[in-house]
Amino acid sequence: MPTEAVSPAQQLRSLVKADGTLELSLAMVEIPVPQPNEVVIRVEASPINPSDLGLLFAGADMETATVSGPTDNPIVAAKIPAGAMRTLSARVGSSLPVGNEGAGTVVDAGSSDAAQALMNKTVALAGGSMYTQYRCVDASQCLVLPDGTLASEGASSFVNPLTALGMVETMRREGHRALVHTAAASNLGQMLNKLCIEEEVPLVNIVRRPEQEEILREIGAAYVCDSTSPNFMDELTHALIATSATLAFDATGGGKLAGHILTCMEAAATASATEYSRYGSTTHKQVYIYGGLDRGPTEFNRNFGMAWGIGGWLLTPFLQKIGPEAFQALRQRVAAELKTTFASTYTSVVSLAEALRLDAISVYGKQATGEKYLINPNKDPGAAL
Amino acid sequence: MPTEAVSPAQQLRSLVKADGTLELSLAMVEIPVPQPNEVVIRVEASPINPSDLGLLFAGADMETATVSGPTDNPIVAAKIPAGAMRTLSARVGSSLPVGNEGAGTVVDAGSSDAAQALMNKTVALAGGSMYTQYRCVDASQCLVLPDGTLASEGASSFVNPLTALGMVETMRREGHRALVHTAAASNLGQMLNKLCIEEEVPLVNIVRRPEQEEILREIGAAYVCDSTSPNFMDELTHALIATSATLAFDATGGGKLAGHILTCMEAAATASATEYSRYGSTTHKQVYIYGGLDRGPTEFNRNFGMAWGIGGWLLTPFLQKIGPEAFQALRQRVAAELKTTFASTYTSVVSLAEALRLDAISVYGKQATGEKYLINPNKDPGAAL
Repeated sequence: MPTEAVSPAQQLRSLVKADGTLELSLAMVEIPVPQPNEVVIRVEASPINPSDLGLLFAGADMETATVSGPTDNPIVAAKIPAGAMRTLSARVGSSLPVGNEGAGTVVDAGSSDAAQALMNKTVALAGGSMYTQYRCVDASQCLVLPDGTLASEGASSFVNPLTALGMVETMRREGHRALVHTAAASNLGQMLNKLCIEEEVPLVNIVRRPEQEEILREIGAAYVCDSTSPNFMDELTHALIATSATLAFDATGGGKLAGHILTCMEAAATASATEYSRYGSTTHKQVYIYGGLDRGPTEFNRNFGMAWGIGGWLLTPFLQKIGPEAFQALRQRVAAELKTTFASTYTSVVSLAEALRLDAISVYGKQATGEKYLINPNKDPGAAL
Repeated sequence: MPTEAVSPAQQLRSLVKADGTLELSLAMVEIPVPQPNEVVIRVEASPINPSDLGLLFAGADMETATVSGPTDNPIVAAKIPAGAMRTLSARVGSSLPVGNEGAGTVVDAGSSDAAQALMNKTVALAGGSMYTQYRCVDASQCLVLPDGTLASEGASSFVNPLTALGMVETMRREGHRALVHTAAASNLGQMLNKLCIEEEVPLVNIVRRPEQEEILREIGAAYVCDSTSPNFMDELTHALIATSATLAFDATGGGKLAGHILTCMEAAATASATEYSRYGSTTHKQVYIYGGLDRGPTEFNRNFGMAWGIGGWLLTPFLQKIGPEAFQALRQRVAAELKTTFASTYTSVVSLAEALRLDAISVYGKQATGEKYLINPNKDPGAAL
């Protein structure tokens, strides 16, 4: 028997219509009675990550967004460019729930010991469909947060922490000794700095603004390069010589940055060469694109020899590759360091309806450093934005 | 004691000067008396491969080439663009020999049994510095050609055949089941077709002209797509669905072709999908760039999910990776199939001096299909071009 009324629950939905319109709205959904090994979670905190925006906005031009309906039940409409529509045929007409991860309180549990043990606990999960008031999931999906940890502190226990850990682990598995990271002052970038300092992994941070450099210097970053500096290529090359970094994780994706990183890695690799090699250095240089802050085309000149690679990197296949035991160990490490290494900060806490206000969308939609939103689907309607 | 006078020998040289000039010329070099395990080869056939042109031309604009000096001892000069000069600092002032591979007759041998056994044999080697009349090398470098094989038939025993074999082997090692190849009507491309038919590996050929398609259809190619066709993307996608090819080797490098291949691979991978996946297919799609026929920038839109890679591919590291025994087995296979699978065809046979004629440079410098030159450094001066 739940400790409170959980059904029907409000849930945020993203719908792509055949006419090229994106529609965001709130639906009322039935929450099932939990099966023996299931629990029902009252979701109290779920971040809006860059990785949520693809599913949420479906590539729509949010500059065209309009809102209709009452304040507590808004409907947002926006136009999807024809190019983006071509890749969306499989989701046309399906109203999809959104939200990769979040945290909350277990308010109902099935009969199994595992489920019952979670009753009234604060748990985090990467369950999908988290922009919802209540969520029924298998008990094994729940990460119990240490006593004294708020849901808001555990909301981002998966995507960013595991991505930061995944970058360091990928570096080790692929034989590199140091890392480069772009858009490096993000919540993820800050975590990665703290993690790399802890693990003694040299990290070269690439940012675009002086205030971003400051954020990173304050938490102890040793190498920060500003890509808008007139001497950026030289500065990056020097940092790469100092660190021997030959692996980069790029959140921007579009433009020339990935290629520039490879060019500077090659310059660093050949800086001490005494003999001409027509095929360039034999040092393998790799950039993984894991985000798409710049949705434009990727462009590079192949002036970095033949030992190079650019590719996509995604958390889920990485976790599958390392296997369930290694995954569980990473989860426990994140839980233990949620208030230190893996702490997140947010600009605003919004309800589901407030997340669909155009002024909110215009802020979190930019994915700008220091403009991160947290959704509390059970936020008191009277509370301030 | 050599069976003929071998020293001094004529050798083609490429020199980058500090003022940004490329100079091609013929030098006279001393050929050493062979050590016990060495042999001296009279070079009779050495191809001008695309992979030789980087070292030979050093990125110079050969449209600016001029020639001076007598017909039998010409000096070619051409301008190197400033951008290319930046990557050439390590070779400025060094007069470099050229020519990756070739074949000829052993005319002198050291005292060891291995060296003596090669006396008067026709051998092939990838010794470097092959655009020369005589070459002294270790006996172990020589691949003895089967009786009745001409030097001209064995001249291309390494670069193209081992690259074709390396592509198929890379496909197997990386878990792919079929191949895509661009600039597919080249000598290498024709070999790859014959090899793939023999090995029952489905191969999708991408060409740019109807006559190139004809060349490939004649040797039995099942899938040929013309990138100038208005329906190229659809035609390529259909061929990729039919073959399940998820690995491409691209000789062009620049432009949008590599990205278009990935786009079509993704379309093929999701053609039968019934459910929308926001990160695209989980099928890993790979393009290796192994040449640079298009020296312009590489550009792509990342509309092919997250499971993809683009990278450089080079024969030498591949051979090092498979080890000396596997390499030796590949060499023997090439020797046995030189007149069938691994046969090469040439447009013209030129002497070293003739290779420096501007009309010759303007033909082989284009790297066009069906315009391949063979150098015979010991060509009778009276013979026709």
